[in-house]
Amino acid sequence: MINKKIILQVMGFLLLIEGFFLGISSLVSLYYGQYDLVALLVTTALCFSVGIILRLLTHKAEKNIGKREGYIIVSLVWVVFSLFGAFPFVISGAIPSYTDAFFETISGFTTTGASILNDIEAMPQGLLFWRSLTQWLGGMGIIVLSIAILPMFGIGGMQLFVAEVPGPTPDKLHPRIKETAKRLWGIYILFTLTEVILLKLGGMDWFDAVNHSFTTMATGGYSTKQASIAHFNSPFIHYVIIVFMFLAGTNFTLSYFALHLKFGKVFKNEEFRYYLGFIILFTVAITFALWYFEGYNPENSFRDSLFQVVSIITTTGFVTADYLQWMPFVIVMIFALMFFGGSAGSTGGSVKIVRVTLLLKNSYQELKRIIHPNAIIPVRINGKSVPPQIISNILAFVVFYMLISIVSTIVISALGYDLETSLGAVAATLGNIGPGIGLVGPIENYAHIPVFGKWFLSFLMLIGRLELFTVLVLFSPAFWKK
Amino acid sequence: MINKKIILQVMGFLLLIEGFFLGISSLVSLYYGQYDLVALLVTTALCFSVGIILRLLTHKAEKNIGKREGYIIVSLVWVVFSLFGAFPFVISGAIPSYTDAFFETISGFTTTGASILNDIEAMPQGLLFWRSLTQWLGGMGIIVLSIAILPMFGIGGMQLFVAEVPGPTPDKLHPRIKETAKRLWGIYILFTLTEVILLKLGGMDWFDAVNHSFTTMATGGYSTKQASIAHFNSPFIHYVIIVFMFLAGTNFTLSYFALHLKFGKVFKNEEFRYYLGFIILFTVAITFALWYFEGYNPENSFRDSLFQVVSIITTTGFVTADYLQWMPFVIVMIFALMFFGGSAGSTGGSVKIVRVTLLLKNSYQELKRIIHPNAIIPVRINGKSVPPQIISNILAFVVFYMLISIVSTIVISALGYDLETSLGAVAATLGNIGPGIGLVGPIENYAHIPVFGKWFLSFLMLIGRLELFTVLVLFSPAFWKK
Repeated sequence: MINKKIILQVMGFLLLIEGFFLGISSLVSLYYGQYDLVALLVTTALCFSVGIILRLLTHKAEKNIGKREGYIIVSLVWVVFSLFGAFPFVISGAIPSYTDAFFETISGFTTTGASILNDIEAMPQGLLFWRSLTQWLGGMGIIVLSIAILPMFGIGGMQLFVAEVPGPTPDKLHPRIKETAKRLWGIYILFTLTEVILLKLGGMDWFDAVNHSFTTMATGGYSTKQASIAHFNSPFIHYVIIVFMFLAGTNFTLSYFALHLKFGKVFKNEEFRYYLGFIILFTVAITFALWYFEGYNPENSFRDSLFQVVSIITTTGFVTADYLQWMPFVIVMIFALMFFGGSAGSTGGSVKIVRVTLLLKNSYQELKRIIHPNAIIPVRINGKSVPPQIISNILAFVVFYMLISIVSTIVISALGYDLETSLGAVAATLGNIGPGIGLVGPIENYAHIPVFGKWFLSFLMLIGRLELFTVLVLFSPAFWKK
Repeated sequence: MINKKIILQVMGFLLLIEGFFLGISSLVSLYYGQYDLVALLVTTALCFSVGIILRLLTHKAEKNIGKREGYIIVSLVWVVFSLFGAFPFVISGAIPSYTDAFFETISGFTTTGASILNDIEAMPQGLLFWRSLTQWLGGMGIIVLSIAILPMFGIGGMQLFVAEVPGPTPDKLHPRIKETAKRLWGIYILFTLTEVILLKLGGMDWFDAVNHSFTTMATGGYSTKQASIAHFNSPFIHYVIIVFMFLAGTNFTLSYFALHLKFGKVFKNEEFRYYLGFIILFTVAITFALWYFEGYNPENSFRDSLFQVVSIITTTGFVTADYLQWMPFVIVMIFALMFFGGSAGSTGGSVKIVRVTLLLKNSYQELKRIIHPNAIIPVRINGKSVPPQIISNILAFVVFYMLISIVSTIVISALGYDLETSLGAVAATLGNIGPGIGLVGPIENYAHIPVFGKWFLSFLMLIGRLELFTVLVLFSPAFWKK
């Protein structure tokens, strides 16, 4: 039997947290004195009320959280947060349709950054702050999930690195998560604050600096400006955001090592080296194309290439240029980048560098195996050989990723979109990126997608964010039979 | 040391075979009395001369053909056949550019069917016959290769079924290949003749019936008409071609069983069941779309859907309708089908049903493994569990397939093509299909691709046809060091 009470209890607890952050957003609204205050306060009260009622109803719950409860809780958290988090947009009238508001909110909590807003600057500050905060909270959630929780379930790219997570590794679930979470959140908050200060120095006002720092560190990509980062005509701001997107797409345990000056550990990490390598490779190619074929000046070519490459590979989705105006082969490269994703244990989404790396290595080793069929040729990462179960798990992940991409592209195209838009919308939502290609490109948004499509893409954001398996197991009959 | 002499000797022998079939094409030209006779005779003489010279130069060659020689021979056969086979087109002036002629010829031998001809009906009969014959010979070659030779190298989807190949399995290489080849070629010829008779009964003239039967059984797709099968406004002809495309995309060892009335063995074969299942699934969906949304009558919807689905999944590439005029989601489905491919041990190309099936099964089993991490849950096919090495091999295959597709799409788009055309050209050549999407769609052709692009796509046809690894190992340093 599934322990339903404990699930409700955890949900109640989490709703109190959401209420707390909605309360903070209400203060922001109060400060700016805009029309969204009532909506935020009502939702704050709603979250607290439901949270408290759930706590009261379930105070006698047994405390055991098994694996199955774990999967259900993880999947539910993102859904419940989004269901409640959408209310302020609807109640205030800023986003009249609940579908749109839910899309905008789950796109926030999953750190996707796909938006339906046609005039971001017209939104009141309290709601903009809440919108950025959904991403920042989503990023926090994903760090703990990917580094501390999912590896125990045996899923997520991090299972390879479990032993490397800094912090005690006792048998008990609770203290370990708490300890790990505290250390990683410390880094997350530290990076966020540093970025805020640098962006302020670069000429942003405090409001923009805070919002963009929230959404950079989450690799979310929500901006307070319709034109995204292109709005800020400052190379300094662009480079600052590049650096922090890069950090946000890096395994946070490596940042922990770096902050403790153990740089050797960082550069010995193969995923990190490939992450760097892919960024350099794509940046060099695109810089050359912009400079040679499009006639950009060298610094502009380099900055625009690097910004877009880092933004897409980390799945952030900020833009400083409309890359759909570039040469077709650059667009194809950017589309390909959408399937790389950040590092495991970062806030980045999509397939993740460690999986891409292992797949490439396994394929290369297979050539050797074909030539020497009797030799045992394992795939190694960080000097250790990867057990076949992990390879099989990664295979399954990538196959599901492709399968979901193909079927979803068919679904979206059935709404009347062309191949490019359908592929773009699916890659950008499943990969938690935000802007795609075609009609959901960097200067477009998702407002024109029909209602069914918005719910469908919301589901893609959810399963993409939760490493597919977390949600997919819930649809497997084996999960529900005892 | 690689035994170069034996490689040259085999090439010499194969050139004699090519000369023989060029001679037959010369007879066809003689019968029709067209201007291509000299060109065909000159090339016949050339093949015989070079073949005899190579035989004389290498008569003292040691007879041992190792694995490495095997890989080199297999890769070279297709290249050498195409290099020589292109001459009649150039010498006759029918295709003035050698690049174009080579593209047309390797597209024939690899059974791809991608054409650069803008006016097929203007070609002389001898050359058209030779063009169809390249596909028929390519199909013959691939049957022996995939059923008898590649499994010994440990590559190709058929390694799973090696034990099922009808025929003796002694230690010696030579008699076994010979015996297997004879049995399978018998079926290949039987099917071809039957199709010729049925197409003649359906109203084609003998010339068209023979040519289309050659290119159906090879899953090649070259037609003697610019409009492909749409030229023949006869449901009977369409259904006959559907049946034989289906047979050509079926494992020929299953046809062997079927002809010996062992139908149980056929229907117990899981790859065959999935092959049927995918065809039914896609046909039902597209039939519904054409009938409900495009207003086709029911029989037309069904026939056009079934024809296009079978043509694409078997990688034949015949068309009876311009599928790019259909709804976007049908185009997306057809594009997705390009990555399925025929059965292992058929003349079909692309990824192959058995690999797709195993990938899907492995992914589904992975969900169970996540729920029951301590249980051993193997992937089974035909009731037997698949060893992890095979799974890892299939993973490597699919990763290379994707990687080559992505990089090649970037290369083609760098020639100035949009995403759709680039994806289409790559999927259709690497998968040995022929017509793609975008500017290389069913009523377009490859004439407009620049010279570099034609050589590049020719290379894709080659590696796609030879199950990737056969060619890729040649590029691996491990292959060349002793």
